[in-house]
Formats: sequence, structure tokens, C-alpha cells
Amino acid sequence: MKAIYPGSFDPVTNGHINIIKRASEFFDEVVVAVMMNSKKHYLFSLEERKKLVEDSFEDNKRVKVDTFEGLLVDYMKKQNSRAIIKGLRTVTDYGYEAQMALTNKNLYKEAETFFIHSEEEYSFLSSSIVKEVYFNGGELSSYIPNHVEKALLERIKVMKDN
Amino acid sequence: MKAIYPGSFDPVTNGHINIIKRASEFFDEVVVAVMMNSKKHYLFSLEERKKLVEDSFEDNKRVKVDTFEGLLVDYMKKQNSRAIIKGLRTVTDYGYEAQMALTNKNLYKEAETFFIHSEEEYSFLSSSIVKEVYFNGGELSSYIPNHVEKALLERIKVMKDN
Amino acid sequence: MKAIYPGSFDPVTNGHINIIKRASEFFDEVVVAVMMNSKKHYLFSLEERKKLVEDSFEDNKRVKVDTFEGLLVDYMKKQNSRAIIKGLRTVTDYGYEAQMALTNKNLYKEAETFFIHSEEEYSFLSSSIVKEVYFNGGELSSYIPNHVEKALLERIKVMKDN
Amino acid sequence: MKAIYPGSFDPVTNGHINIIKRASEFFDEVVVAVMMNSKKHYLFSLEERKKLVEDSFEDNKRVKVDTFEGLLVDYMKKQNSRAIIKGLRTVTDYGYEAQMALTNKNLYKEAETFFIHSEEEYSFLSSSIVKEVYFNGGELSSYIPNHVEKALLERIKVMKDN
Amino acid sequence: MKAIYPGSFDPVTNGHINIIKRASEFFDEVVVAVMMNSKKHYLFSLEERKKLVEDSFEDNKRVKVDTFEGLLVDYMKKQNSRAIIKGLRTVTDYGYEAQMALTNKNLYKEAETFFIHSEEEYSFLSSSIVKEVYFNGGELSSYIPNHVEKALLERIKVMKDN
Amino acid sequence: MKAIYPGSFDPVTNGHINIIKRASEFFDEVVVAVMMNSKKHYLFSLEERKKLVEDSFEDNKRVKVDTFEGLLVDYMKKQNSRAIIKGLRTVTDYGYEAQMALTNKNLYKEAETFFIHSEEEYSFLSSSIVKEVYFNGGELSSYIPNHVEKALLERIKVMKDN
Repeated sequence: MKAIYPGSFDPVTNGHINIIKRASEFFDEVVVAVMMNSKKHYLFSLEERKKLVEDSFEDNKRVKVDTFEGLLVDYMKKQNSRAIIKGLRTVTDYGYEAQMALTNKNLYKEAETFFIHSEEEYSFLSSSIVKEVYFNGGELSSYIPNHVEKALLERIKVMKDN
Repeated sequence: MKAIYPGSFDPVTNGHINIIKRASEFFDEVVVAVMMNSKKHYLFSLEERKKLVEDSFEDNKRVKVDTFEGLLVDYMKKQNSRAIIKGLRTVTDYGYEAQMALTNKNLYKEAETFFIHSEEEYSFLSSSIVKEVYFNGGELSSYIPNHVEKALLERIKVMKDN
Repeated sequence: MKAIYPGSFDPVTNGHINIIKRASEFFDEVVVAVMMNSKKHYLFSLEERKKLVEDSFEDNKRVKVDTFEGLLVDYMKKQNSRAIIKGLRTVTDYGYEAQMALTNKNLYKEAETFFIHSEEEYSFLSSSIVKEVYFNGGELSSYIPNHVEKALLERIKVMKDN
Repeated sequence: MKAIYPGSFDPVTNGHINIIKRASEFFDEVVVAVMMNSKKHYLFSLEERKKLVEDSFEDNKRVKVDTFEGLLVDYMKKQNSRAIIKGLRTVTDYGYEAQMALTNKNLYKEAETFFIHSEEEYSFLSSSIVKEVYFNGGELSSYIPNHVEKALLERIKVMKDN
Repeated sequence: MKAIYPGSFDPVTNGHINIIKRASEFFDEVVVAVMMNSKKHYLFSLEERKKLVEDSFEDNKRVKVDTFEGLLVDYMKKQNSRAIIKGLRTVTDYGYEAQMALTNKNLYKEAETFFIHSEEEYSFLSSSIVKEVYFNGGELSSYIPNHVEKALLERIKVMKDN
Repeated sequence: MKAIYPGSFDPVTNGHINIIKRASEFFDEVVVAVMMNSKKHYLFSLEERKKLVEDSFEDNKRVKVDTFEGLLVDYMKKQNSRAIIKGLRTVTDYGYEAQMALTNKNLYKEAETFFIHSEEEYSFLSSSIVKEVYFNGGELSSYIPNHVEKALLERIKVMKDN
């Protein structure tokens, strides 16, 4: 059984990585599907975001990384997958994600969303918070992989130089 | 007793239509008040949004459709109405809507907001989700009236041609 | 249009009274339906609970007080009413009440629940809190009618004498 | 991969059955684990509750039914399973279930809880509501299997005769 | 400034201890007020519960342990304190605790409740979960002090012997 | 003990003022820290926002007003303060604020966030709602100080003249 873990991953955090690892113990393959949404502004390009996830899973053969645009359910059909993985941190997350799960099921009856609760230490963590902290000169180095922190600092340096 | 059902209706969905029908069984008249907010971007113009609602209620004489700008309570006073109807899908909806109900009551002591729970099949449905799905080539035809689907497809075609 | 406002009212508080008054401005008749549930322990008997509500509405001819046992929807059919009124204080209230509204609609398709948000000053108030405070020698006299406070103090005195 | 779906099932409803069926499409085996808790009062005995689930899955070879007492994680170890399935109806459900998922993970690091959102039509449904309605002479026959309704009516008849 | 930290503490957990320690850095004195409620069933007696807290704070002179019965606000007045400390784990906790904070403020205008968020590792922890796990033969030894675990195991042994 | 009360205060409302006053009874000094975020659009400039807060506390010597940019924890270190004060109106507020409290604690272990519940009459109030109402010609004069209302009306007049 192949599962899809969709998201922006701008950039990937240890919270995402923890969910992916845990899911990969239960599904034969977990495809991390990095989303392209032309209406959104990203810090990293689609290819960069994909690369940062890939570099986090070099040694885990059950994890694949891919990109997609458009409806998640269309991507799932192409991938021949019916399982969506979603991490949940808070009750507020759940309100929104339940709505998306119902939408996806309405668009593709065979699709199921499996929610996994974030481990406690990642319950506050999001890509937005990581960016906010680093842009303001703080650091959260135990919450992102080294190669992500490096990419983040380089990107911010380039932006400030311009 | 006349009740006001305010909203953006960009575009109207079967979820809205269900709430309006149910409310019209209890109030002598339900005025669907299509809101104009100059700070928001709409897919359909004010007149188009109004027309799409009207075409959904051709045969229901208890439902009127109108437009308004500015404070809802000022519009209510002009309409000589004291009842607001609001549909609720989720607990998260309620957090925000309760705040608006208290604000409206502070501005106009005689105003009451009556909340109606969405029927189960519409619990995931919103105008935003409808637009998101259609823009990406999906369809939710059992969740919007035919004339709304037609208008939506035409609008998207025009936008892509430009 | 006749609306039913069901509850235990053990005892009625100013929070209940506020909801009833507000509802009675919009419905021709509001029937306060005092519930008998043989599995629950009440401080006041069914007749006492009914009397305490009645004494709060002596001058309001649109408010009737009655008792019922069994399913609310069966009582509504007997009363020839299709409208339920419910006050909501918090988001947590709403979670439970939405479930009850859906259940009632499944049992009686024509039934609608109209939720009204508690005014701010009553947002903490419940019959349980009133009893808890009075049993421990406190008072909340601005939150219950005089005749309810009197009945409460008498009942507690009797219980402590035994 | 074998998954455990624990619960009281007093009695099983179509909401439970829907979750079990959906999970059985993704896991090689779903063990419905009927819980015995000596502090709780059940309407049906452990064996009856188990039988009512079994009769709902006669034709589904991927679904097994079993009973357990004590900690869920101890039962999982005996079953050589690391996956728990839980259905979620509301945001309020999630608050409690997330706490249980974290507890189970603390007791058994390899355990993962996979949450599945209830389909819309079952979002209000619980064993308690089913019992409450039937005890009061109502019916919810489209929400429980025939054999469960029959067992429920017989049980209530016996209780009223005594 | 003296603050009151009220609760049942049946028994105290590392989650409580964490909140108390953190509060004691900001208030001159934190009085852990162990509550006696004659309607509740406790595993440990009032004196035992008090002793288990005391033994957790032998070396912290800013922490006092006391017992009380009746309204918290009456106890606060006797103690000449106006500050209540409450730990919050989840959004659901907050719904109830906000209601209690408003009640206490209505009974004693000068009282303020200061809420502190539980650290992540204690977000699932409660005295009930601790008891449930130990009664069923599990252990959570990194979540309770040694002397509490010892008392818990002894108490359970006594109960099973009877 | 010095506490920091951070926010945008665009503009300050009676809800903020109530929280500040209550906090100033428990902390030796409350520093209202007006935030500058270059990505946000404000109605009032940083200096204006600061001035409107100052004018609300002319007579309260325990309240200081300051501005900051960047991470709150960096500002706290400079101020030699470890206490953050936050007002909470709703359960939804709490979801977000708990995440921020955990982030701040991760960045600065000694930092504690003390949450205070809004008094009932301010439970709906926010700077956004105040601006929305005044922009549309309404008024909420019992919810903002006179000097804030005056500044707001002048600002709106200037904007409409342009």
C-alpha cells in the first residue's frame, strides 16, 4: 500500500520528518508530495523544497519525494494511491483538516485520510514559525535538520543583501 | 417576522440554499443579503452573485435577494428586521460567528442571531472549496445548482483565455 | 410559530430567562419544556422546577411552561411545534448541542434547532455552578431571580438539617 | 499489517461498521477489540457485544472480532500489532483521543494511532444516542444493522418486564 | 505576592510539579491547596494527598501545601491571596477553566486566575490516566515521582488483597 | 517582577486596558510592548500606537509603554524580564497562543506566559472589529477610550478625504 503525504514543506521540519518516518513503518511506500500552488508565495522554489525533503531521507528507501500541482485526488489517481497521511498538532488543525478529508472523499470515494498525532515535542512546530524565528535572528536548530538550517540561513542572507 | 441571511455568496452553494429553505419555513420572509466589501476580491460581481442566488429561489416567494454595503446592523434597521440567520458547519465556525453576533448585539440591542446547524452532507462545503476544486479541473456538481456550475465554468474559461 | 425551549432547569437561572425573553420576541409562543429523566438526580422535583420557571414569567403571556418525559421530538409532535431553541455559551457547548440537533433532525425531519448565543454576562453561568456555589455558602444573587434564591436556600437548609 | 480497532460497542452502530470497512481496505487484518471494563455498566454482555459485531462482518475475512481487558497496549503486544484505528466525529472527540494516543505511545513506543474521520451521515451517531432513542420509543433503523435493532428491542422489552 | 494552586492531586504528577515549580519562580509563595469534596471518591485520603505533594517539595521553601473545603474564593480570602494558578493542557481544558475563572471573579472581584500552558511532555498527563495505567499493570514511572509510584503500588496491592 | 504585554495595539481597546490594569496589580511593572512588524499594514504608526496606549495610563505608574521589533524573547532578555502576559477571549485564541507560548519557551527556557481570561464584556472585542465598525460609520464608544475614538475618527476622515 502506497500513501501520499502532501504539503508545502517550505521548508521541511523535524515535525514533518517524524510523521513521515512513523508512517513509513506502516505503509510500503510513503510519497512526500510537495505542492505547487501558483497563488502562494514560497521562500524556497518547488525544486528546492523537494531537494530539502529528499536530503532528509537519503537512507530510507520506503520514502519517495515528488511534486504536484492541482487537485490532490488527481495526483493520487495518477500515483495509484488511495491513502493520504496528515499530521495533526492541535484541535484547530483538525477542524480544517477534517473539512479537507471530506472534500477529498467527495471527489474520490476510495480516498482515505489517516491522521497521525504529532509527538509532543513537535506540537508547536510549523514551517511558518521556523521562518519567523530565523528571519528575526533566532534559531530552532533542534527542530530542523542541519541541511535545512544551512539553506535557510543562506536564503535569508541573500534576501538581506538585496 | 423578517430575517436577514447575510453573506458573500461567491458563489451560492447547495449548503447556503439548504439553510435558506429551512429558515424560510420559520420566518415570514428571508432576505438573502449579498455583501459588498470593497477590500475583498470576488470571483463574481455583486450583481452576478445576487443573480445566482435569485435563480436558485425563483419559486420560493418567501425568499428575497438584496445587496448591501457597510454594517449589517445598519442594513437591518433600513429593512426593519431584527433577526439574523447564520449557518454553522463546525465548532471553528462558531468561535468566529459568536464574536460577530455579540458585536452586532452591541451595535443594535434588538438584533438576534439565530444559528442553524448545517445538514451533515454540507458540513465540508464552502464557496472557497467549490472555487478551488473547479479551478483545478475537479467538479462538485451535487453540491451546487446547475446554473451556478455553468456560470463557474464560463468564468474560469474566460480567465484562462486571458 | 411555536418554539420549544427544553431543559432541566434545576433551577432556572437568569441566563435561561434571558434566552427565553429574547426568543419570545421572535416566536409567537415559547414553551419552556421542563424535562423529567428518571436516571438523573435533581435538587428540585419536576413540579418545583416548573413552578420556579412559571414564577419568572408571570407577566409574559408568550411564555408557557410545561413538563415532558421521553424523546423531545415526540413532545414536539404532540405540541405541534417544529422549532427548538437552545442557548449556547461556549464552543464546547456547541460540540454537544450540534450532535443533539442532528439526532433530532434524523428523528423528525421537520424539526429545526435555533441556537442563540448567551449574552456575555451569562457566559459562565449554569444551574450546576449556582448549586455548587450556594451549597458552599456563597451567593450569586445577581444571576438568579429572588424567588429562586429563596427556594435554593430553603432546600439546602432542609438537606443540612437531615 | 494488522490493526486494532478498540471500543465498547454497546452496541455496534453503522458508524463503527463504516470505519471498520474503510480501515479493512488498507490493513491486512482489522481486529475489532471489544473492551471489558469492570467499572462500566453495559447494556449487553461482553459476549453479546462481540457477537453483534461478528454478525455484522460475516462476509469480510479481513475483519476479526476479539475481546480484551486491561491496557490496550498489552493487548496489542500479545496480538503482535502496532496500529490502532480510531474514528473521529468531532473536534471534541479529538481532544480526548489525542490524549489517549499520546498515553499509548508513552506506554508502547512502537504503537501508532491512525485517526479516520467519520463520514458525514454518521457524524452525530454514538452507541449512547442509539440507546437513549430506543429506550424512549424512538428508532434509528438506518443507523444500526437489523440484527442489532432486534437485539436492542428484545433487551429493552426484558428490562421493562422486570 | 502569594498564589494558590488548587486541585485534587489524587495523586500529584510530574505535570503538577512542573507547573508549581514554574509558578514559584514568579510568586513569592505558592500554596498548593489540596481540595476536599465530600461528593468525590478519592484513591488517597486528604492527608495522604497532601503528604505526597509535600514530599515532592521538601527543598523548595516557596512552596507550601495546605488543604481546603468549600469555595476556593473563601479559602483565598482566609489566605489573603488574590492569585489562582491553573495549568492548561488542551483547548478542552480551557473551555471549563475559563468558566471557573469567571465564576471565581464574580464571587470575588479581586481574584485573578493565571493560566500556564503545560510543557509538551506533560500534555497528555492526568491523575486519572496515571491511576488507570497502574491499576491495569502498566507504569508511567517517568511521569510521577518515585514516592508517588511507591504509594500507588501499595494502595493497589491493598485493594486487590481485599 | 517585571512582565511584558506584547501586541499590535492598532489601536488599544478597553479590552487591552482591562488586562493591563489587572496584570499591574500582580506584577511590579507591566511593560506594554508595541510591536513593529514590517510585513504588516497598520492603521496607526508605531509612535501613534504607543502614544494611544500611554495616554490610557497616565496615572498608573506601574505601567510603562515601549516598542520593539524582532523576536519577543530577545526584547525580554534586553528588558531583563521573564514573564509574558496574554489575554484570552476564546478557545480559538488559546489554540494559537499556546503554540506561541511553547515557541517562546523553546527559544528562552526561563520565559513563562501567563494567560488571563478577558472579562465577559470584552469577550467579543478586538482592534480589527473596532476598525471595521468605525470605517463603516458605526461606533463602539463604550469599548475604547475617548482619545482613541477621537484619533480613529480623525484618521478615517483623512483617509476618505484622500
